[in-house]
Amino acid sequence: MIVDFTIFPTDAGESVSAYVAQVFEIIEASGLKYEHHSMGTNIEGDWDEVMAVIKSCRDLMLEQSNRISISLRIDERKGVTNGIERKVASARAKMNRA
Amino acid sequence: MIVDFTIFPTDAGESVSAYVAQVFEIIEASGLKYEHHSMGTNIEGDWDEVMAVIKSCRDLMLEQSNRISISLRIDERKGVTNGIERKVASARAKMNRA
Amino acid sequence: MIVDFTIFPTDAGESVSAYVAQVFEIIEASGLKYEHHSMGTNIEGDWDEVMAVIKSCRDLMLEQSNRISISLRIDERKGVTNGIERKVASARAKMNRA
Amino acid sequence: MIVDFTIFPTDAGESVSAYVAQVFEIIEASGLKYEHHSMGTNIEGDWDEVMAVIKSCRDLMLEQSNRISISLRIDERKGVTNGIERKVASARAKMNRA
Repeated sequence: MIVDFTIFPTDAGESVSAYVAQVFEIIEASGLKYEHHSMGTNIEGDWDEVMAVIKSCRDLMLEQSNRISISLRIDERKGVTNGIERKVASARAKMNRA
Repeated sequence: MIVDFTIFPTDAGESVSAYVAQVFEIIEASGLKYEHHSMGTNIEGDWDEVMAVIKSCRDLMLEQSNRISISLRIDERKGVTNGIERKVASARAKMNRA
Repeated sequence: MIVDFTIFPTDAGESVSAYVAQVFEIIEASGLKYEHHSMGTNIEGDWDEVMAVIKSCRDLMLEQSNRISISLRIDERKGVTNGIERKVASARAKMNRA
Repeated sequence: MIVDFTIFPTDAGESVSAYVAQVFEIIEASGLKYEHHSMGTNIEGDWDEVMAVIKSCRDLMLEQSNRISISLRIDERKGVTNGIERKVASARAKMNRA
C-alpha cells in the first residue's frame, strides 16, 4: 500500500519545517520506499511496517507539542508493491500529450 | 485522539453502502466512542486501539475487493479524551449566533 | 455533492474553537444543508454554491492568520441531493446489527 | 496556495489511470505550477485559478461517471508563491542527515 502522510504540530506557529525535518529523518531511516513532495510524503510498504513508522513520527511530535494534526490517504491494491515508481508513469503513458 | 475515518472498495461500483454497513458493525462492536456522519466515522481512543479497529475494517474490505481507498484525519490533543462530545459544543459556545 | 470541510489557522496556538465558531456562523447563514461533527462540517449543495461558502470562510481566516490549513473530501453522486440525511441511514439499514 | 488534489470515479473499476491521464492533461495545460506524485498532484496558484482547474477536472469526470471522489488538502501561507520548489528543500536543509 501507499500512504500520503502529513503530520505537524498545530501549536508551534507559522513555520513547521524544523518538525518536518525530524519526520523526514525517521522516514528515510526506515528503509521503506518513500517520495517526499511539497504537501506530504508517500510511503510504500505493508500495513504494519508503514504504520510503525507513522507512529514513531507521531510519538516524536507529541514529545514537543500539545496538539498535532495528521492526515493519511491510503491506496491499497493487491499485488502492487512498486506503486511509487509506477503510478504517475502509468497515467502519463495514457495521455494524449504524452 | 479522534480519527475521521473513511474506507471503501474502489472496484465495487457506484453503491458502497453494503460495505459501509460492515465497517459500522466492526466500529460499533469495538467499544470505542464513535460518531457516524455522512462522510465518515469519527472514532476516539488511544492510538493502538483506534488503529486496531481500522486495521480490522481494512482486512475485511481486502477479503472482498482488490483495491481499497482509506482516509484518516487525526486530531490528537494531550489530555483530551472526550473530544467527540466537546468539540462542536466548544465552538458553538463561542458563536455570536449561539 | 457533499463536502467534508475543515479549516483552521496553523499559527494561532493550541485552541482554535474561536475560529471554528466564525466558520460555523458563515456556514449556518448560507442556507445550505450542513452537518457539524467533531472533525469538520459536511456541506451539501451544488459545486458553485458550496465552494462560495468555503471561499468566504477562507477569506475570513486569512484576515486573522498568516497560514491556514484546509481539507475538503468530496463525494459527488449524480441525482443525489439529500445525502446528509440518507447516507448513514442507508448503511445502517444493511447492518446485521441494525 | 498549494493544493494536494486527487479525483477519481468510484464506479469505474480497479484501474483508473485512463481517468488520471485526462486530469493530467487539464492540469498541464493550465499554465499553473504543478507537481505530480504517486498519490495526487500538487497545484500552486491563487484560489480562483486553482479552483477553476479543479472544477474543469470534475466536470470532465462527471461526463464519464455517476459518482466521483475528490480530496483537496490546502496549505495557504501569505506571501509564498513558490512553495512547490521550496517546501521540501526547506525541511531538508534542517535535517541532521542533510
